[in-house]
Amino acid sequence: MAAQPLIRRLCVIGVGLIGGSLARALREKGEVAEVVGSGRNEDNLRAAVRLGVVDRYDTDPARAVAGADMVVIAVPLGAIEPVLRAIVPSLSPGAVLTDVGSAKGSVVADVERVCGQVLPNFVPGHPIAGTEKSGVDASFATLFRQRRVILTPLVETAAAAHHLVKKMWELTGAEVVDMGVRHHDAVLAATSHLPHMLAYTLVDTLARLDDRAEIFRYAAGGFRDFTRIASSDPTMWHDICLANREQLLEMIALFGADLERLAEAIRTGDRAAILATFQRAKRARDNLYLD
Amino acid sequence: MAAQPLIRRLCVIGVGLIGGSLARALREKGEVAEVVGSGRNEDNLRAAVRLGVVDRYDTDPARAVAGADMVVIAVPLGAIEPVLRAIVPSLSPGAVLTDVGSAKGSVVADVERVCGQVLPNFVPGHPIAGTEKSGVDASFATLFRQRRVILTPLVETAAAAHHLVKKMWELTGAEVVDMGVRHHDAVLAATSHLPHMLAYTLVDTLARLDDRAEIFRYAAGGFRDFTRIASSDPTMWHDICLANREQLLEMIALFGADLERLAEAIRTGDRAAILATFQRAKRARDNLYLD
Repeated sequence: MAAQPLIRRLCVIGVGLIGGSLARALREKGEVAEVVGSGRNEDNLRAAVRLGVVDRYDTDPARAVAGADMVVIAVPLGAIEPVLRAIVPSLSPGAVLTDVGSAKGSVVADVERVCGQVLPNFVPGHPIAGTEKSGVDASFATLFRQRRVILTPLVETAAAAHHLVKKMWELTGAEVVDMGVRHHDAVLAATSHLPHMLAYTLVDTLARLDDRAEIFRYAAGGFRDFTRIASSDPTMWHDICLANREQLLEMIALFGADLERLAEAIRTGDRAAILATFQRAKRARDNLYLD
Repeated sequence: MAAQPLIRRLCVIGVGLIGGSLARALREKGEVAEVVGSGRNEDNLRAAVRLGVVDRYDTDPARAVAGADMVVIAVPLGAIEPVLRAIVPSLSPGAVLTDVGSAKGSVVADVERVCGQVLPNFVPGHPIAGTEKSGVDASFATLFRQRRVILTPLVETAAAAHHLVKKMWELTGAEVVDMGVRHHDAVLAATSHLPHMLAYTLVDTLARLDDRAEIFRYAAGGFRDFTRIASSDPTMWHDICLANREQLLEMIALFGADLERLAEAIRTGDRAAILATFQRAKRARDNLYLD
């Protein structure tokens, strides 16, 4: 334990992959004196205690946040509004509140709806990390190491709250960057939300073919990588695509038009157009990652 | 070297990832006495000699096949017809011929066009293995271990030729299965050709956005896996999508309709439909692979 830990009492609402990994990382650093968990699944909360991820839990979020100086909401986006309604009246004066939702516009709107304003001590956040696994069993302390965490503070956000949330994520080994709410949602629609829609749709399309058993038998390594994200939690992703509906639909439309254009090039045997598409894509992908 | 190697002289036309890995595997087993390479890129052929993948090479495929008892055509699909025109007159009597193309209908049509008939000693084949890398430098002896190789013999195919090609692939550690030509092309359109089109299109769509630099900066692990196949060789894939045009276009249309249906569900906030799609996909993906 650090002589003066950054956080005295951390309350994590939703002790899953993200919430659990954050608690683990901060405990490992000795930068949190006490961790209180909350959530709807008591089995999961008991597991969190057993695994040493939290010290104790309370299934009532209003009681769980009592006396916490840092509250992290790590539930699916669709559950954020009811959680806010439950906890806001019980927050300690000065408590800092943040979330980990994959869309930020909807969370800011939730806060405004519940509180009638943007809370100065609320710092919208989004760690760009995760696996296709869910639950506290899947959490690990190094999940955020060398990953990016995006914060989307508003003009109303208090500098001290922003600073504390930034510091908390840096302690997990993440690089923290600030971004505007709409810009965050546009970037994530392109790099994460659209790819998940494509992976889910592809697997579902194939799973409804008559010879699906045969088809999946011959799915090789490329398919395995390509469809890994289709194992992600359906409820979480259902919430994300509705929360970022407008920007996601725009990306789906862009992609759909490009796919139709490629299909047309294949149909008409337009070799130059096909090759140009693949070459541009390969160049972009190769420059992006050196693996 | 086995006392009586399976193959006396193997000629590999196109000593890349697949052709090179096959030669390496057979040499490691001592089941080939001599390997002759051929291809258009002399630098690559020189590298193949230097790496010990082939004993010698000849850039003229007609000369390269002379005296070979097994000839493997491992060039992109679009180059198979000219290769056949060059080599068929020079094949030794009794030489067995096979290929590794990712579509089989087009290769069978190539053989019929060049020879006026299906050659009894020609066995169409397709190893379901590979990486997004290309060239002999990327080849390795264990590429086919525990992978599937599909052969699509025709009624005209000689049993002895079929048997020899099957034996050859089994020596690499692969499981060899037989399939009809059209069925092969349907299964591959679904599990491989469509996913490649989606990955190429996605990366290309994003690469043409105004804030592409920013977007790619925030692409995390899921995106990396999802787009790995967009690094595949553009020429090879250009050939594949034209060779399997009809069945690929059918799959793109199916997928496109499903994506449009999902977009409509997101647009109208049809929670049940969205969730059902994601749940079906997750169930199929989880049952498919246990990773």
